[in-house]
Amino acid sequence: MNQSSASGRKRQPEVTQRRLLDVAGEIVGEDGVAALTLDAVAKRAGVSKGGLLHHFPSKQALLAAMVETMADRFMRTADELGEDDPDQRGRAARAYVRTAFSEPDTEIRRWAALSAAFMSDPNLLDGWRERLREVRARDREECADPIAALVARLAADGLWLADVGRLYDIDAETRSALAERLIALTR
Amino acid sequence: MNQSSASGRKRQPEVTQRRLLDVAGEIVGEDGVAALTLDAVAKRAGVSKGGLLHHFPSKQALLAAMVETMADRFMRTADELGEDDPDQRGRAARAYVRTAFSEPDTEIRRWAALSAAFMSDPNLLDGWRERLREVRARDREECADPIAALVARLAADGLWLADVGRLYDIDAETRSALAERLIALTR
Repeated sequence: MNQSSASGRKRQPEVTQRRLLDVAGEIVGEDGVAALTLDAVAKRAGVSKGGLLHHFPSKQALLAAMVETMADRFMRTADELGEDDPDQRGRAARAYVRTAFSEPDTEIRRWAALSAAFMSDPNLLDGWRERLREVRARDREECADPIAALVARLAADGLWLADVGRLYDIDAETRSALAERLIALTR
Repeated sequence: MNQSSASGRKRQPEVTQRRLLDVAGEIVGEDGVAALTLDAVAKRAGVSKGGLLHHFPSKQALLAAMVETMADRFMRTADELGEDDPDQRGRAARAYVRTAFSEPDTEIRRWAALSAAFMSDPNLLDGWRERLREVRARDREECADPIAALVARLAADGLWLADVGRLYDIDAETRSALAERLIALTR
């Protein structure tokens, strides 16, 4: 969308904010976090610099919102998968594993680009930590064996790390055997 | 050690290099990777800037050597633990789990400080990737169930990520139950 059409109609602030976050995600996914400047985001989104600063007063604020958005999307996907799961026992942990194993490549690239940012500023993960506290509370309620569920969650996190850091060469067959094994741990 | 005593006696290049890496590790462990400058390392090690540049021509070269040193220490610890393990089946995977669960806080702080660097420059992990290929080959030889061993390794990596990113509040009792479970997976 070019600048004239963007300014040509009345937009809700949430729509603009969402668009800025989408564009920021595209930039880091394509060119890494070093390419993420407020100017680049404003230009690509067809939003004035002032309009951008209204939503995100700093690059740090933008990064925080990006991590929050990705964490939110991950946990929402997990929630939806959980709702479709007829077996209540270990449901949240199983949905977490399934979500981790089905993260699309575009999302992995964004996580990879952002990981350097949240590793150097642990505050960016505050929202994620809060969500993990909630899901572990659910595990304790709904899992026959909460330790096994935690093993499954940690292994899913390890797979995330392997994907983001390209650590292991895990072929499709091994990947699917792994998923099956972790899902079994949640039952 | 101050500058005069350092220059006062003949030192092997390897000793200097080791000292520079130790000092660099202390700096990032105490004050984070932002505090790591070649000048700061040279000064604290009592080595001239030229002497430092001889060993590490750039901050990038220093970071690469630091990651390599930590990866090496981790895998060496695992090798030693493995040698003391009378049960050959799943030995390497079990030693990896034990090493991950006993990483000292100082080491976790260094990993945390360096993680932003290797997340933004995946080449820094080339040596680690090579080692992982070797250990997985060992798993395939010595494990009755290589997928279970990989689950244990990935969960240990997930715990590393949790420690480095302070993601989960895992109490000592849960931690020890986790270790026991992962070790059982390697048998």
